[in-house]
Amino acid sequence: MLAADNARLIRQSWHINAQDWIAAVRNGEIEGRRAVTDEAIVNAVLALKPDRVLDLGCGEGWLCRALATAGIKAVGVDAVPELIAAAQRSGGGEFHVIGYEELAGLWSDIGSFPLAVCNFSLFDENLAPLLSCLKGCLRPHGRLLVQTLHPRADAAGEYRDGWRVESFSGFLGRFTQSMPWYFRTLESWSALLVDSGFDVDRVREPVDSNSGKPLSLLLQCKVSAS
Amino acid sequence: MLAADNARLIRQSWHINAQDWIAAVRNGEIEGRRAVTDEAIVNAVLALKPDRVLDLGCGEGWLCRALATAGIKAVGVDAVPELIAAAQRSGGGEFHVIGYEELAGLWSDIGSFPLAVCNFSLFDENLAPLLSCLKGCLRPHGRLLVQTLHPRADAAGEYRDGWRVESFSGFLGRFTQSMPWYFRTLESWSALLVDSGFDVDRVREPVDSNSGKPLSLLLQCKVSAS
Repeated sequence: MLAADNARLIRQSWHINAQDWIAAVRNGEIEGRRAVTDEAIVNAVLALKPDRVLDLGCGEGWLCRALATAGIKAVGVDAVPELIAAAQRSGGGEFHVIGYEELAGLWSDIGSFPLAVCNFSLFDENLAPLLSCLKGCLRPHGRLLVQTLHPRADAAGEYRDGWRVESFSGFLGRFTQSMPWYFRTLESWSALLVDSGFDVDRVREPVDSNSGKPLSLLLQCKVSAS
Repeated sequence: MLAADNARLIRQSWHINAQDWIAAVRNGEIEGRRAVTDEAIVNAVLALKPDRVLDLGCGEGWLCRALATAGIKAVGVDAVPELIAAAQRSGGGEFHVIGYEELAGLWSDIGSFPLAVCNFSLFDENLAPLLSCLKGCLRPHGRLLVQTLHPRADAAGEYRDGWRVESFSGFLGRFTQSMPWYFRTLESWSALLVDSGFDVDRVREPVDSNSGKPLSLLLQCKVSAS
């Protein structure tokens, strides 16, 4: 299957699953996320003390709302209209329906940021254009936070880049539509970010204190000096 | 057990195992190393095109000899006299018996480098003083390469920093003396390097093409701008 087909399937899956996703997030049904990775991304943002944040792939807007309670203005963008509609109804930020490929033209409208966040929102294979484009919205010395799956998440499988399928089987049977996603090794993340003009300046691995297992990889990046 | 005791045991283990280690390396008995990680560190060095290299924990000197064949002058240092003696007998570089704690006073003697390499030589818990000290031998824009165990190396165990014991059971029964070593998560490596004044600017994960498993973590760092 072509990467472009998978990118289309990812968006289609979010479209079909939108209401289930909103319910799952808001009911706290996603145990690992709620307990560990949500807190990790909020703390990583707060540690950087930004006045504004761009939340790319904001979904139903929980992170923007969390940051609003800490006095941070957040702008959330997402390609899925149903999710943005839910985010707008709940408030706590400024929300726009924007596909990744439309982002480049919009920086003049939404302004520049000291920090952009991609919280479990980079599932596509070809991300270099998006990441290069993201630099256009970052102020000098701006940062990027990417939270994604941990390299040990798929410990049984082969350790190499490739498309995988998320069946959402761990989500209380809510979801009917599976979603393709692109697994990247740590080396691949590093190369992608460097080639897109970012230095990784801090790696975090939020760990489930019960199991001792890392639940995500949290990459803090800054725009390269050169 | 105290960290200082483990540091002593590490050195004692190398002392006892020195001749077996020299034979194992030179007979190519360490399959993963020979096939994948040796090539990875050599290629990582060559890609940076240094004129000189400091090989910290050089052992019996194979890396210095490999770099010499590529026209790179290498200075190897190691705390174990037996290993340095073997390195000196084989030539290919300049070799010194130097414990990590004695390094700081020696930069004026051995000069400055565009690149320092720690190839499977950082097994201690308290590495910040050594890494901070290492910066003293690096030229402006100097680099550091650290090859170490991969975060998935101990996939069955808990994913947290701590002392482990290497029994060398995979080494054809040569070694009689086990060695303590300190396992670090990726987050811990990142924090250690950042706190010691280095930015990680490229991560590599040399993979065994047969098993698909990563055999090491190879961190390329540069001295932080600030």
